[in-house]
Amino acid sequence: MKKEARTEIPRKAVYRLSVYLRCLHRLENNGIHTVSSEVLSKAAGVKPTQLRKDLTYFGQFGTPGLGYEVKQLIGMISGRLGTNSLQPVVIVGIGNLGRALLSYRGFEREGFEIIGAFDVKPGQYLSAETPIGVQAMSALPEVINKHVVKMALLCVPPTAAQEVANQLIEYGVVAILNFAPIVLSLPDEVTVNNVNLAMELENLSYFVNE
Amino acid sequence: MKKEARTEIPRKAVYRLSVYLRCLHRLENNGIHTVSSEVLSKAAGVKPTQLRKDLTYFGQFGTPGLGYEVKQLIGMISGRLGTNSLQPVVIVGIGNLGRALLSYRGFEREGFEIIGAFDVKPGQYLSAETPIGVQAMSALPEVINKHVVKMALLCVPPTAAQEVANQLIEYGVVAILNFAPIVLSLPDEVTVNNVNLAMELENLSYFVNE
Repeated sequence: MKKEARTEIPRKAVYRLSVYLRCLHRLENNGIHTVSSEVLSKAAGVKPTQLRKDLTYFGQFGTPGLGYEVKQLIGMISGRLGTNSLQPVVIVGIGNLGRALLSYRGFEREGFEIIGAFDVKPGQYLSAETPIGVQAMSALPEVINKHVVKMALLCVPPTAAQEVANQLIEYGVVAILNFAPIVLSLPDEVTVNNVNLAMELENLSYFVNE
Repeated sequence: MKKEARTEIPRKAVYRLSVYLRCLHRLENNGIHTVSSEVLSKAAGVKPTQLRKDLTYFGQFGTPGLGYEVKQLIGMISGRLGTNSLQPVVIVGIGNLGRALLSYRGFEREGFEIIGAFDVKPGQYLSAETPIGVQAMSALPEVINKHVVKMALLCVPPTAAQEVANQLIEYGVVAILNFAPIVLSLPDEVTVNNVNLAMELENLSYFVNE
């Protein structure tokens, strides 16, 4: 059943929903209450037909000639994305990148709260700006269980990534944002998104050097 | 001519080259000198046929029955990706994310050196761990020119992103790693990769909530 629900909105459409949400927040901040599909699609950098198609996942709404109510659309999209309440997230692997992510305050603004940081070397030095301490890996299951954590940021070295990912899933995590430059093999019901900043730069570098 | 060269290796294949490169470095570190396409493709999480196809962009090589020489393949891939010498990169927009990226030491290890940080509020406080100071936007053209910078990390707010991107390109940047949640419209000869950590989390969140 879970897998059927998953195929309902294509993954690329989910990313576009995030873009629409950001555009709508900017409109709202500028005191705009309704928006046409033309204006919203232009702001998001997609075609109007694409926008309309994406929004049909929410059923029929929007008033012909008037467009969409900004507040209503924000509520529907963030409800669907699960970001209308603060979601707990753990971060595992507090090296350079994990440390950088811990000091990044942007997640909370977007609906995610890093409630635990874990490393094989717990209690290591963090800068004064970092809000939380680093716990031992052995504390992971309890924290995940207590806070009903479903999402994790995985920042361990590539050699440890698969093993730690397996542990996270065993403890109840179902979605991983993987920063390690390896392809994780995990059960189908687990969602993995990969982010590799160095690889993004390398990719650009290729085009610079052409 | 530039555009023709660009279509030569598909963009997705360039990402896979980055993955292969990381696998090869791990093999090298483990003292392994030759690798079969089966072993390398498994480590990279791709099909052997895909790997072989990707490597044909470098022409014919590899010894049937023996496989590829690890060191040779590293040299060829990193040469093509332009990461066999340290590449200068600027970072523009030193808010939370820019600060986190500045304190992230992972780029240098991968062949990129952040040689300048710029913000509308220069000289702002950075933690003691941060290696370089923040300069005024007016210093951008000189730094880009002096160090022949082709790549930039764009971390300004979405409302400023398009304007700053235009400036960067005017000054000579041809590749942008964009962290702002908007779709930049830029000339075809400019390469843009988008990274949005909050959107990656939101995307996971959707699947968690299904």
